Amino acid sequence: MIAEIITIGDEILIGQILDTNSAWMGVQLNMAGIKVKQITSVSDEKEHILSAIKDAESRADLILMTGGLGPTKDDITKSTLAEYFNSKLVMNEEVLAMVRTFFAQRGRELTELNTKQAEVLELSTAIKNYNGTAPGMWIERNGKVYVSMPGVPFEMQSMINEYVIPEIRKKFKLPEIYHKTILTNGIGESFLAEKIEAWENSLSERGIRLAYLPSPSIVKLRLSTSGTDASVVRSNVQTAIEELKPLIEEYIFGYEEFGKEPEQIEHIIAELFIKKGLKFALAESCTGGYISHLITSVAGCSAFYQGCVVPYHNQFKQELLQVDPEIFTSAGAVSEACVVQMAQHTLKKFSSDVALAVSGIAGPGGATEEKPVGTVWIAIASKDRVESKLFRFGTDRNRNIRMTAVSGLNMLRKFVLGL
Amino acid sequence: MIAEIITIGDEILIGQILDTNSAWMGVQLNMAGIKVKQITSVSDEKEHILSAIKDAESRADLILMTGGLGPTKDDITKSTLAEYFNSKLVMNEEVLAMVRTFFAQRGRELTELNTKQAEVLELSTAIKNYNGTAPGMWIERNGKVYVSMPGVPFEMQSMINEYVIPEIRKKFKLPEIYHKTILTNGIGESFLAEKIEAWENSLSERGIRLAYLPSPSIVKLRLSTSGTDASVVRSNVQTAIEELKPLIEEYIFGYEEFGKEPEQIEHIIAELFIKKGLKFALAESCTGGYISHLITSVAGCSAFYQGCVVPYHNQFKQELLQVDPEIFTSAGAVSEACVVQMAQHTLKKFSSDVALAVSGIAGPGGATEEKPVGTVWIAIASKDRVESKLFRFGTDRNRNIRMTAVSGLNMLRKFVLGL
Repeated sequence: MIAEIITIGDEILIGQILDTNSAWMGVQLNMAGIKVKQITSVSDEKEHILSAIKDAESRADLILMTGGLGPTKDDITKSTLAEYFNSKLVMNEEVLAMVRTFFAQRGRELTELNTKQAEVLELSTAIKNYNGTAPGMWIERNGKVYVSMPGVPFEMQSMINEYVIPEIRKKFKLPEIYHKTILTNGIGESFLAEKIEAWENSLSERGIRLAYLPSPSIVKLRLSTSGTDASVVRSNVQTAIEELKPLIEEYIFGYEEFGKEPEQIEHIIAELFIKKGLKFALAESCTGGYISHLITSVAGCSAFYQGCVVPYHNQFKQELLQVDPEIFTSAGAVSEACVVQMAQHTLKKFSSDVALAVSGIAGPGGATEEKPVGTVWIAIASKDRVESKLFRFGTDRNRNIRMTAVSGLNMLRKFVLGL
Repeated sequence: MIAEIITIGDEILIGQILDTNSAWMGVQLNMAGIKVKQITSVSDEKEHILSAIKDAESRADLILMTGGLGPTKDDITKSTLAEYFNSKLVMNEEVLAMVRTFFAQRGRELTELNTKQAEVLELSTAIKNYNGTAPGMWIERNGKVYVSMPGVPFEMQSMINEYVIPEIRKKFKLPEIYHKTILTNGIGESFLAEKIEAWENSLSERGIRLAYLPSPSIVKLRLSTSGTDASVVRSNVQTAIEELKPLIEEYIFGYEEFGKEPEQIEHIIAELFIKKGLKFALAESCTGGYISHLITSVAGCSAFYQGCVVPYHNQFKQELLQVDPEIFTSAGAVSEACVVQMAQHTLKKFSSDVALAVSGIAGPGGATEEKPVGTVWIAIASKDRVESKLFRFGTDRNRNIRMTAVSGLNMLRKFVLGL
């Protein structure tokens, strides 16, 4: 099955927003066994949209469109589709009821403009929007499927996952595709490639493709294969992973299963702490609350997470976490002595079983000759144990914050598991 | 002048890489007065590339292509262009010398494959690559310009800035294009549209285009226009903005100038606090450190930012911020009384001039009948003033965190400015 993606709206063409929707859809479609032939970004102009759809349908069986469904004048996708399919816009009462509820729940008045959002093409099936007001539309004609969705990423994403891909699976025979991703931390892409070279060379004859997906502090290895028998496809990949494990065991911190939520280090930590019944607290200096943000982005984290202190100025490392002020003049705030005290006092302050503390130089300012930008100390304390480690990251402030968080959480995972 | 961008390569179609090249080129071209009509991403297949070029030249005067110039088998852009323009590939001695130097400087051997990279179309002008080995090509035919460039971002970017745009300026008269974006918070897209309807209707006769760009808690309004005189074009947009201001003054929190870094609320806050010489501190419950993360993502924030407490459990709202425990049983932790006490004690604890506190139900758990998911209280305190406000956001945990942060920081901006 061949798909094409059309994004509608000037904001992509003038570079005001990055087209993350197409990349996201590309991944989902490929994982479902659907090949993406072309991605086209067009302006909010009727003739242009019409010709893009016509071109796309000449090459593809599935045409996915995003954008231009808002209530305002510059949004013309719906009227353009009405013309293309020669089908009028009709009010969908079920969608209207959802729009009404959406506004009522927020204590806002329903305007005439919003009411019009509940209109869909007569020949379409409305796709419900549980996250906003503009419905999607599913249109079938001459064996081809056309889907129009809002451009707001999370509205589009839930339509793709909960409606579009399941419907496609029902109507078309797709090959069995299986992907599994290995998450590593603490080793760079090229070193990883060297370590696993012989194993990697053995993959192609087994019909497995390998992709390296690097991001700050994490390199993901994605294994993909396809076939007609789901269980064969799956065990083929699983065997390859079992062979890989002994080569890079110390770097692997998790796995991502195909079709499930991406596995983040914060979810692995949450699962671990809940399973072990341990309480956790944080003290963050250079990361400024980012690790706490990652932990609290996990629904249900209150089962193990107690809280955090961000003593951004040294004065508050002393006042709130009882760090000995002598340390600031001798070793400095970015030192083993400082993070160890921060971790130990955070442990007590938040009545926790484990506490993590970080202090470093995120940059661009604050560096000295011995402590360049990217120097970070991390400590972890429990009632009877303390561990600390020095890291040297790069020169970019936001990458340093991200790398400190991921490396700290992976250090925490190993600490709790006794690795 | 109308341009189109064609990106060549499977990695964008399967979502393995995000197409940042097109967005970057979109900004550069628009700033130069060149309108981008379409962006097309195609696979590494000859027929597909040929038809994409043919389509693009039917609409545009300038066709910019990236990708497919590498030395490996899957890179077929050059041979495909040779067929399209019926022009053979010839060795360019000047480019070959550059490739030789490139390899010599890195102590690497020059292979036959690499030598072939110095071949260009006979009818083209080679564009030198000072950052890699694959040259670009500039081709003119029937008054249209075709440019082929490598897909590596920094190689492409220097070709665009140092060769392509200067050459276009020499050969064509370009109009002046101007965009300015107004940032609003606290009002939805459709309510905004109603409030400014008469003003919006007046724009088209002045040659100004308006786009609504919504994201969680923020709606951006982008005004675009073009003309022959830069100062006229600019003042035309500025006049329209001055007329708009009184209609929605209370919602505007900033402006984005085209071609500059996007303006974030945390940068506006940082600038404001540094200018006023005020110290700032935070107490975050439902946002779990996200506001502190936004503030500390701004380089130089230590000039005004003191720190944060995340008392995720009520016990620590009491122990660390002296919230009266009676409140938890009467009004609850998500209440005006609680956030006001949190803000006031954070102010003192961090020796600050202004403190912000938030407490709410991010979801999915923790809701009650009177306090559904999305209920958030925000308070701001200074030595002589306190302000508090109830917000009702949506049902998605991470959007609620984002919306609380943006709304809280905008409330803070108004508090400090006395608005």
